Order: sequence, then structure tokens, then C-alpha cells
Amino acid sequence: MQDLNVVLFDNFETLDACGPIEIFGTLGASYRIEYFSMNGGIVASRQGLRVETKPFASMEPSGTLLIPGGMGTRTLVRDPEFLGQLATLANQAEDVLTVCTGSAVLAMTGLLNSRRATSNKLAFSWVTSLNPSVDWVPKARWVVDGNFYTSSGVSAGMDMALGYVSDRLGYEVAHKTAHDIEYLWNEDPRTDPFAKTIE
Amino acid sequence: MQDLNVVLFDNFETLDACGPIEIFGTLGASYRIEYFSMNGGIVASRQGLRVETKPFASMEPSGTLLIPGGMGTRTLVRDPEFLGQLATLANQAEDVLTVCTGSAVLAMTGLLNSRRATSNKLAFSWVTSLNPSVDWVPKARWVVDGNFYTSSGVSAGMDMALGYVSDRLGYEVAHKTAHDIEYLWNEDPRTDPFAKTIE
Repeated sequence: MQDLNVVLFDNFETLDACGPIEIFGTLGASYRIEYFSMNGGIVASRQGLRVETKPFASMEPSGTLLIPGGMGTRTLVRDPEFLGQLATLANQAEDVLTVCTGSAVLAMTGLLNSRRATSNKLAFSWVTSLNPSVDWVPKARWVVDGNFYTSSGVSAGMDMALGYVSDRLGYEVAHKTAHDIEYLWNEDPRTDPFAKTIE
Repeated sequence: MQDLNVVLFDNFETLDACGPIEIFGTLGASYRIEYFSMNGGIVASRQGLRVETKPFASMEPSGTLLIPGGMGTRTLVRDPEFLGQLATLANQAEDVLTVCTGSAVLAMTGLLNSRRATSNKLAFSWVTSLNPSVDWVPKARWVVDGNFYTSSGVSAGMDMALGYVSDRLGYEVAHKTAHDIEYLWNEDPRTDPFAKTIE
């Protein structure tokens, strides 16, 4: 049993988190999913979904870390306390997955420096301006560099999560999971129809 | 401003609810999203997402009603109190949207009798056995009959939500919304690659 530890914060983007957790949750006994925010308690997504969380301090120092994006990241990239704690969690995790502007926050910890990564294509200029030491990839549904998986915007997180499952548990498991949730998996990380929207 | 009223219950399927709310939430000011359960308080999805809800009694008698599916529906289809209250909410709503086995619960209120509807393809035999007075459509990503929209399993709810947005606010709005969340919309309701999995 592996842990999937989901990092939440006010104004997270609902599907950034909920797409991947649907996929990890459908795997059944392989992953135990837990929800965290810096101080615990209720956090609200941009879509007004109010979710109960545990504090970062109670997270087991292992497992897979999932960092969604959303409008909340605009302030988090300037929050030294949050970034410091996130860096600790990311260093402790076996693998780190970001969706959308989740990679902007992770980039501000320095952990993506000299690594290949991607992000939301509609916010690409903003994200890449935050830390030019990251090797930002403009055309990718998702990017893998070592134990860091970063995806493009919102829905791309589901494709990346399935790609991660494929890498860790095998292609057949990923394919069956997509089938079980009647999802048409865009399984080639290099096919990115939204890359052309970067200004 | 329209209301999207989301019906939640223990063991709802996370993406059944969160896929459509991502879409309605991305429309911005067009929809105000609120979350309800029969008695209010915290309900937990199958993936352990614990969400704060208001009681059914506090729902405004208007707007669009969204009913997700999930393992929780297996008991709800035999719960007369829940079904009675759901029937009232559905009768009050301007439009009713179901995802996955959400249509099983709605079918038990009798409101889908003599109407065309669909559901999860992996649970199709169970769903259709509950109420043969519904005109169940085996091959459809989603089905529209009057003000009732019913979708196939889990991920199909996103395609249906975009179809609903297209019908109510125009194709361009739906297309832009899919683009904003980098979603590859399967926009033909008749194309259903999962229909072949019905036993």
C-alpha cells in the first residue's frame, strides 16, 4: 500500500486535484489517498468545493505527493513559509506530481532547477518567468524528469496520472483504469494540442 | 446568475461530481455552485474526499440539479426517504443532470419513466434492471430528453456538462470552456467507445 498525499490550499483548481485522485482511487488497494493543507482544516477550491484536510505536519514522509494548481498559487509562489514546508514534503516524497500551475509553486522551491518541466499553457509566460533555471518544455501534455512529473493545464493531470500509473504499475493497469472510468486517455505525453496557445 | 446545485452523499464518485463542477466553475459568473446532502455536514467520496455540504432543505427551488453516481447509489436506490426528497428537488429544478449511476437513483423516483436515458456501461445491467419503464439507451456518451441530461460513466459527465453548456449558452462558450481547462471534449453524444463493454 502506497500513500498518495494531496496538497490542497484555498483557491485550488478542483479538477487539478480530483482528476488524478479519481485515477488513484480507482486502482483500489494500491494507493491510500490523504488530503493535506499547511494548517489543516477546511480549504475551498475555486469552484467552492470545501474539503476537510489534515495539517502538513501529520503527513508520513514517504509516498507520492500531488500538487494541484489554481488561482491560489498566485499568492503561494510568494509565501516563504508555505514554500519552505512544501520543499520539505517534496524532498521526503518518493515521487512528486504537479498539475497545471502546481509546477509554478514547486519551481519556487528550487527543486525543479535544471530539470525539464511543463505547466498550464494559458499561464505559461507567468510560470516560466518565476524561475528561468527550470528547463521549461512548451509542448508537452506532461513531462517526466526523474521522480518529478509535471503536467499541462487542468485536464492534462488525468493523462499524466495515468502515465505515472503506467510507469509504476504497468501499461495494462493504466489502460484498465481509464476504461473503468470511461476515460479516453490521451496517452502520448508529446501530443499537446494546447501548446499553440502560448503567447 | 444560475444555480448549479450538486447532490452529494457518502461514497459518491469524485469525478462524477468534480468533472462537471470544474466546467460550470470555469464559466465564471454564469453559475453559482452549491453543495448539498440530505442532512448536510461532511460527506466522503469513494476516494476519501471529505466535502462540506448544506442540507437539502436549504436548496433554492430552481436552477440546475447535478446528481453524481458511485457506490453510494447502491443503497440510495432502496432508501425511500432519500428518493422522496430527491424527487422533490428534481421536480423543482429547471434541469436535471445525472452522471454514471446517478441515473439509477433518479430512475427510482419515477421521473425518468418513458424517457430516454443512459448510465454507466459497466453497471448497465444493474441500472436498467431497477426500472424497465425507462427507455435505456445502451450506446450514448450522454442522452438528452427534455430537461433531463443523463451521462455514461464517470468521465462522460464532463462531455455531457459541456454539451449542456453548449445547449444553454452556445457552442462557442462550451468550446472555449473546454479549451480553458485543456480538455479534449468528446462532443458527439452518439460516439460511445464503452458501449461494447455491456454484458
